[in-house]
Amino acid sequence: MKYDTDCVIIGSGISGMTCAIYLKRANVDFILLDNSAPGGLLNKINKIENYPGFKNISGPDLAYNLYSQITSLGIKVKYGNVLNIENNVITTDIEQIKTKFIVIATGRKAKKLNIQDLPNISYCVTCDANLYKDKTVAIIGNDEKTLQDAIYLSDICQKVILISNKKIKKNNIEVYKKQDDIIIKNNLVESIIINNKKINIQGLFISLGYEPNEIKDDIKKEKGYIIVNKDMQTNIDYIYAIGDAIKKDYYQLTTATSEATIAALNIKKRLSDRLN
Amino acid sequence: MKYDTDCVIIGSGISGMTCAIYLKRANVDFILLDNSAPGGLLNKINKIENYPGFKNISGPDLAYNLYSQITSLGIKVKYGNVLNIENNVITTDIEQIKTKFIVIATGRKAKKLNIQDLPNISYCVTCDANLYKDKTVAIIGNDEKTLQDAIYLSDICQKVILISNKKIKKNNIEVYKKQDDIIIKNNLVESIIINNKKINIQGLFISLGYEPNEIKDDIKKEKGYIIVNKDMQTNIDYIYAIGDAIKKDYYQLTTATSEATIAALNIKKRLSDRLN
Repeated sequence: MKYDTDCVIIGSGISGMTCAIYLKRANVDFILLDNSAPGGLLNKINKIENYPGFKNISGPDLAYNLYSQITSLGIKVKYGNVLNIENNVITTDIEQIKTKFIVIATGRKAKKLNIQDLPNISYCVTCDANLYKDKTVAIIGNDEKTLQDAIYLSDICQKVILISNKKIKKNNIEVYKKQDDIIIKNNLVESIIINNKKINIQGLFISLGYEPNEIKDDIKKEKGYIIVNKDMQTNIDYIYAIGDAIKKDYYQLTTATSEATIAALNIKKRLSDRLN
Repeated sequence: MKYDTDCVIIGSGISGMTCAIYLKRANVDFILLDNSAPGGLLNKINKIENYPGFKNISGPDLAYNLYSQITSLGIKVKYGNVLNIENNVITTDIEQIKTKFIVIATGRKAKKLNIQDLPNISYCVTCDANLYKDKTVAIIGNDEKTLQDAIYLSDICQKVILISNKKIKKNNIEVYKKQDDIIIKNNLVESIIINNKKINIQGLFISLGYEPNEIKDDIKKEKGYIIVNKDMQTNIDYIYAIGDAIKKDYYQLTTATSEATIAALNIKKRLSDRLN
């Protein structure tokens, strides 16, 4: 059987680029595909303080570092919008690629509230809570993670206004069913109106959950997230998945790079086993 | 019951420092202990090219970055040589600390060949193989990972001299049972003498395996490596372990930071669950 390449990585966020670094250094022939700019969700993160090695760095700057790193290794990101995966063949809007292995690193996106993006609106509590130490923040959401997010915020912020149909009792958390309005001043959320009362807030968190970016394929999923084993292998032998596209407990940059490493070294091992 | 702290992290390598970053940002009270300089094994790595975010960085520089990062968060490394762990109490050479949770991040050390450290001697194939692309290298070892290391090298280097009691057939791998001598010139390994023949090499890899740094405790281990579940929890409910101290497939910086993240966020969740 003739293959165009040993491996195709779909997605060039932090997990896809890390996978590319490991495959390249292991001398594996591969193609790194994306349908938009390298960096993925990184490009939408204001400030990162929990990535080991950088005191703080903006998402776009970390994306740029990673892009420089892959470029220095001679890796190029190829444009391709993947339409379909079947029998080791990836069909994009411009070509078909036959490959021995596939790594899906297509990430996910936060479900959006119908409000413009502003500097003090965040879709990630673990990322940004620390920016509002001893401040007052609001958090909106009915997601299964919303209460956990509110508790996390309440340990760090002075006061948390939780707008949710979920219930919780804690000293510094005030719970409301819904807001009447969100007031924006000078390109920042300034306050939130609840029962005709104006509550000043320094930050607004949206916790509506995420949704993975999906491809047309036959891979086993749960609520859209791909199920993988400890080797990052899906139920289809030659397909791996990493990063925010998979079902897991913690969606962090650190966990993404680890999954990328494990998938790459596993694929390298299987390619070597075939040859020897 | 009165505790001195919520958590003690033992070891300030990359996994211990990452765990500290995540716990601090989650507002958990903890102590970070070490019996030597922060950074652990990082301080012994020449050149790192596979850590996402840095094209290349020396181990000590990455250790310094991490140390600056924890310092900027107000985290201090406390001196302590841990002698014993029992019933939530850690005994060091200078004090006893009663803690709700423990994270063991004590790392491991490469088993050494009886030869001085030199710039072109490496104890990590995955880290350094790429420095010898299209060069001739030797690799010495009888470890279970030695053949895998030799194959990895053979995909990247022009020629690999494998000195081992293990067997393999591959075009560019020459296998010998043992070397007669290793010749050092200008502070570099210059050549290796086998059967009175001198073979020039550009790099020498030692693959004798690793051994974890062990503490006196009752934690379940395999060959000294701590067994953890997917939450990085050991068989003892309140003790977690991360990084090179645990049994796992790939001992990489990326996997270490991921394990640190998972342990920290798990402990944070359990502390919050106790309060609510």
